[in-house]
Amino acid sequence: MNVTGAGAILQALRDRRPRTRSELAELSGLGRAAVAQRLDALLATALLAPVGEAASTGGRPPTRFAFNPDARVVLAADVGATHVRLAVTDLSARVLASDGVDVDIGRGPTHVLAWIVDHGRALLDRVGRRQDELAGVGIGLPGPVEFATGRPVNPPIMPGWHDFDVVAFVGSRFGCPVVVDNDVNVMALGERHAAFRDVDHLLFVKVATGIGSGIVIDGQVRRGAQGAAGDMGHVHVPHESDAVCRCGNVGCLDAVASGAAIAAQLAERGVPARARRDVADLVRAGSTLADQLVRAAGRTIGEVVATAVSLLNPSVMVIGGSLARAGESLLAGVREVVYQRSLPLATAKLDIVAAAAGDQTGVVGAAALVCDTVLAPERVEADLSRLTVAAGR
Amino acid sequence: MNVTGAGAILQALRDRRPRTRSELAELSGLGRAAVAQRLDALLATALLAPVGEAASTGGRPPTRFAFNPDARVVLAADVGATHVRLAVTDLSARVLASDGVDVDIGRGPTHVLAWIVDHGRALLDRVGRRQDELAGVGIGLPGPVEFATGRPVNPPIMPGWHDFDVVAFVGSRFGCPVVVDNDVNVMALGERHAAFRDVDHLLFVKVATGIGSGIVIDGQVRRGAQGAAGDMGHVHVPHESDAVCRCGNVGCLDAVASGAAIAAQLAERGVPARARRDVADLVRAGSTLADQLVRAAGRTIGEVVATAVSLLNPSVMVIGGSLARAGESLLAGVREVVYQRSLPLATAKLDIVAAAAGDQTGVVGAAALVCDTVLAPERVEADLSRLTVAAGR
Repeated sequence: MNVTGAGAILQALRDRRPRTRSELAELSGLGRAAVAQRLDALLATALLAPVGEAASTGGRPPTRFAFNPDARVVLAADVGATHVRLAVTDLSARVLASDGVDVDIGRGPTHVLAWIVDHGRALLDRVGRRQDELAGVGIGLPGPVEFATGRPVNPPIMPGWHDFDVVAFVGSRFGCPVVVDNDVNVMALGERHAAFRDVDHLLFVKVATGIGSGIVIDGQVRRGAQGAAGDMGHVHVPHESDAVCRCGNVGCLDAVASGAAIAAQLAERGVPARARRDVADLVRAGSTLADQLVRAAGRTIGEVVATAVSLLNPSVMVIGGSLARAGESLLAGVREVVYQRSLPLATAKLDIVAAAAGDQTGVVGAAALVCDTVLAPERVEADLSRLTVAAGR
Repeated sequence: MNVTGAGAILQALRDRRPRTRSELAELSGLGRAAVAQRLDALLATALLAPVGEAASTGGRPPTRFAFNPDARVVLAADVGATHVRLAVTDLSARVLASDGVDVDIGRGPTHVLAWIVDHGRALLDRVGRRQDELAGVGIGLPGPVEFATGRPVNPPIMPGWHDFDVVAFVGSRFGCPVVVDNDVNVMALGERHAAFRDVDHLLFVKVATGIGSGIVIDGQVRRGAQGAAGDMGHVHVPHESDAVCRCGNVGCLDAVASGAAIAAQLAERGVPARARRDVADLVRAGSTLADQLVRAAGRTIGEVVATAVSLLNPSVMVIGGSLARAGESLLAGVREVVYQRSLPLATAKLDIVAAAAGDQTGVVGAAALVCDTVLAPERVEADLSRLTVAAGR
């Protein structure tokens, strides 16, 4: 069966606006007979469903069709150094249920991924959905990932994960597509999905124990030639500190402005702070010193962000992560430097804001990544028969 | 007539490999009858032509079809501050004839563009092609351009050009599409077309009187939210100099490492050099001081390039412009800092090279931009009847 155009029809409907056959013919460039045939194929998958009635132009009102995000579900996992958040979402990345549990990533991939599989099944049960209703699984990992294969590449805080075939391990257990990306890319997607759906140029910077960024250009996360794009933490910044970075270089942004670096600066000044959480707690508790150090870190981060703004000309720059949630100081420091440094053409319409999506950013982004992958037009057309069989209930 | 898929067929054939009807059916996902109808439509435009014979599987050998880059021509203009280069190319951006003439951009858009129109017509005559065979005109301008409209946006060295409707002025005279972009984006495309056609992630840096960059990510030039992406010249760099940039800020890369900045540094040291050409001439003549200053400029540029490499993870970084052509010093300075600063994952497979395409980079890039625009699948399908009528000769 020729289904060319079915993918485009579904793609157009993902904006949630119902449309008539004529509107779909116009959108897809297909004739009426071809539209009818593609609609039948899509209706058989339940990804699309007829809805109410269109404004009549006389005679019988035409049926309208809409995307049905409940046709399938997505399992999303946001894996951190010591914590995993899981969620089941619909096909618009809306969270139906979620759960967060402490899991040590250092226990290795088979332990952590088996945990995700078990708890993922339990979470599906909780919302009353079956495993064969999964459209896909999305996983964000705290390290570099080769996106095409889903394999971690020498991830510094993930012993035992290098080159592990995450897709095969999880895919074989769930029997569905698995998409793996690094956590900051996934957070950038989650923030865009939650608050900036119409923004095509967005820079997301996460400031927690370390510093990283996710870059959305022309509506897509850009990962670069080896998937290393957005590696802001190891950009060199001019700084009086001679702190050595965990990468071995001196003067990396990570070594002078991350949560770990600020904790070390506090400890040097006699204030015990062992981790970024302590830093955030001190800021919230009103520590002037902690607040000053966080603001200074914001200015240093702002120097790198100013360069990124000149190079990429985004319209929104979002700052997230635990340090950004501790108050306004980090954001104020970033803004101070970026608006001073960058040219008016690049900053006149630039919004610099704190992340809005909170704890769920990662799982929402991982789910959005799965939806964009499995609902991509060419993928839908290739998978139609499989989708139809699986939907037969 | 339904021509959905005709654009995809033409797109697939742009790799110059001839294909049979069966191969095109497989590539496009269309049935044999649909492929035959799309082929007829494309053959009527001459954009596609039947060629030799395929290896026979017994019986009559099937006809193969290939993209015909001679079906139309492109006029390309690379406009500099004092010089315009013009070329007529085929639809694969191959230069058929070219010409360079001194023209002062300060005389304003109507003067410069009327010159381009007149000399463009003469150049078409020289290669024996008619104006109605033009597929489009591509123009690179030395300043910020709003790509969607082709209008310059407050270009600093182009008095009278702000917001001028270049597309309407040129398009009304030639009766064809006109694409306008800034000169560095066009050079990035030209360099990719000439030497790195399979490279999807390329950073091009031009070092001449000023410094700018063109960014290719996932195979496309990325221009950002307002078309200001790649503005490397006004990135702030740590430097002992307090030279004020023409933008009003202190410490911009342009103010400390451009051809103009090096000329000023030479003049301060008693060596008369008024412009980047003098700097390049001094380097070629063996001036140790000029060579040292150019290498130091390369290191300073390398600091910004290192940040761009961390953020974008390109696989090729090309350095061009008159200063790059003056010898190895600029490139050596850039390499020194980038390989020291960036993480192994981003530099292990990174080539840092001097531009290969020379004087023609700009016109080749402008022509490639026109070809990619007018031969884009949706554009081809929308324009098929116009293309067919115009080709009727």
